[in-house]
Amino acid sequence: MSELLFPKLKPVLESDLQKAQSHLDILTKPPGSLGKLEKLAQRYVAIRNGDSTLNKKSIFVFASDHGVTEEGVSAYPKEVTPQMVYNFLSGGAAINVLARHVQAEVIIVDMGVDHDFGNTEGIISKKIENGTQNMAKVPAMTRNQAIQSLQTGFDLALEWSSKGTDVFAAGEMGIGNSTSAAAIMATFDGGPIELAAGSGTGVDEAGLKKKIEVIRKALQTNKPNPKDPLDVLSKVGGFEIGGMAGLILGAAERKRAIIVDGLISGAAATIALKIDPAVADYVFTSHQSSEPGHAMFFQLYNQSPLFDFEMRLGEGTGAALGISILESAVKIYNEMATFESAGISDKKPS
Amino acid sequence: MSELLFPKLKPVLESDLQKAQSHLDILTKPPGSLGKLEKLAQRYVAIRNGDSTLNKKSIFVFASDHGVTEEGVSAYPKEVTPQMVYNFLSGGAAINVLARHVQAEVIIVDMGVDHDFGNTEGIISKKIENGTQNMAKVPAMTRNQAIQSLQTGFDLALEWSSKGTDVFAAGEMGIGNSTSAAAIMATFDGGPIELAAGSGTGVDEAGLKKKIEVIRKALQTNKPNPKDPLDVLSKVGGFEIGGMAGLILGAAERKRAIIVDGLISGAAATIALKIDPAVADYVFTSHQSSEPGHAMFFQLYNQSPLFDFEMRLGEGTGAALGISILESAVKIYNEMATFESAGISDKKPS
Repeated sequence: MSELLFPKLKPVLESDLQKAQSHLDILTKPPGSLGKLEKLAQRYVAIRNGDSTLNKKSIFVFASDHGVTEEGVSAYPKEVTPQMVYNFLSGGAAINVLARHVQAEVIIVDMGVDHDFGNTEGIISKKIENGTQNMAKVPAMTRNQAIQSLQTGFDLALEWSSKGTDVFAAGEMGIGNSTSAAAIMATFDGGPIELAAGSGTGVDEAGLKKKIEVIRKALQTNKPNPKDPLDVLSKVGGFEIGGMAGLILGAAERKRAIIVDGLISGAAATIALKIDPAVADYVFTSHQSSEPGHAMFFQLYNQSPLFDFEMRLGEGTGAALGISILESAVKIYNEMATFESAGISDKKPS
Repeated sequence: MSELLFPKLKPVLESDLQKAQSHLDILTKPPGSLGKLEKLAQRYVAIRNGDSTLNKKSIFVFASDHGVTEEGVSAYPKEVTPQMVYNFLSGGAAINVLARHVQAEVIIVDMGVDHDFGNTEGIISKKIENGTQNMAKVPAMTRNQAIQSLQTGFDLALEWSSKGTDVFAAGEMGIGNSTSAAAIMATFDGGPIELAAGSGTGVDEAGLKKKIEVIRKALQTNKPNPKDPLDVLSKVGGFEIGGMAGLILGAAERKRAIIVDGLISGAAATIALKIDPAVADYVFTSHQSSEPGHAMFFQLYNQSPLFDFEMRLGEGTGAALGISILESAVKIYNEMATFESAGISDKKPS
């Protein structure tokens, strides 16, 4: 992929992980008794070479439309994409509520919504085109557009980390994008499409069957090459998925934690991981979505989800809850007393 | 149990549950797509007959000592109980950090710590005795003391709900109390003690073996009757466990949500459930602890944990994280736009 100019990522240092664990072990609790919270804090601090600052949290919601919706793969009409963008702007969507709850900002990026937002305040316009092409018939986008979508997300991560973002989260909106994400996961997984596709926003059994057939057609028509993540993104991806993958790469490049959400976000993270495996050190999982294709992400990435609330909404809602858990872990690291400072016996009775 | 004067609890009404779900279904998301968050919000609102207020959150940490520590069942000396109470007061313990994170208050109740706190500010003194007796040799407490511990927690719940607490959480501190809680769970479960006992604060394999033998001796000596929860509490329980069970009953009586924590809190909830099964409608689970006896609570209660972070610290730390998740769910209920108010299509394409 000589056309991609992203710098090679540096893995997290074992010495930084050990240093962080040493601090966790002198806090007033039995060693390891905070389980995964300790692991989260350890990695967060090691990523930043010992800096445990966690103030600014930014949830990016990339929005885009999908040509494949003309095949009737979704329970909602594609007009819902711009309608939901307006809902994000007025603060009434689930992601707004959860972002306020975890005190994170929501950044809305138009990557390719099939709607003219004009100069609507609050939208970052990075529109590549008014939606992708119908992947059941032709490639969803050109290779150059795929690069452009990645570069857009990457540059946003760089810009926001300069503005002080400590934790990034990758969310999305795009009617039809669970079809695209399932196609991506099925490509990398190589197994039956049935294991990747789910009911998305709520198609019925017949709808799911149609969705699987559409994905099969898309893979047969385009033959995405699983060894070439850019090829996969361009043939069966979406502009918002490219944006998320770029954001993940950019956050990792700036040594920032990046929290992924459900199926669509996981598909983007998979593309990022295929581009540079070292991205794994910077990615934090949040929930396990009800969408079956999401399980493939955890398998490919060899990680487990943090929680499973049977959510399947997208927008970054699972990642928002993940922010709060990561932050609680980092506060444990920063705010707990040590055995010595609190004058507490840390030895067994003799 | 004629000596218990708690009023009989009213179960949550099916009509209140349906009303709450109807509201959740018109919010701008595919129906049910927020999974367990919707279930949490639904029950929270139904408990309060449609009132969705959630402002004040109070985590009660009941502290007490255990005579059984003289058998050497814990990795830490019993002096750690008062030392940790002082740590709670100065805000340096894990529960303080997590309570601040979720914006909850921490209430510290001395139920029977073997230490004279004098008039230390910030401790609610309800000391029954300086620790329980050694249950390996005699009953841990008298039946009257068991009633007193329950009444104490019950009255605190009533007092705090009058002060405006919307959500209660039950946590604890007491070196030796994972031995007591495992004995309680083994009694109700009726199965092998090995399935109830874990390493607690971190005893090694030999320590765990000894702990199991001590529990076996306690059960053989005292023969707690699983059909009589007061008998179980008095023979192998602890004053803090009685306090928590009383708090749970009192919160339910005042139609308040009560979040339970790990093994010890689960043992208290089991006692409360055995006293009045309708308490189940008011109890919210939080995490699955690494302690094996905790799994018995979920089996007996027929509920699942909300998350599993491999935590085993106690203090109410898992419940604190549960508060934030419950609150996020209630905010979804309160703050999301409806399809109608946001002008969003909620129909399938024709």
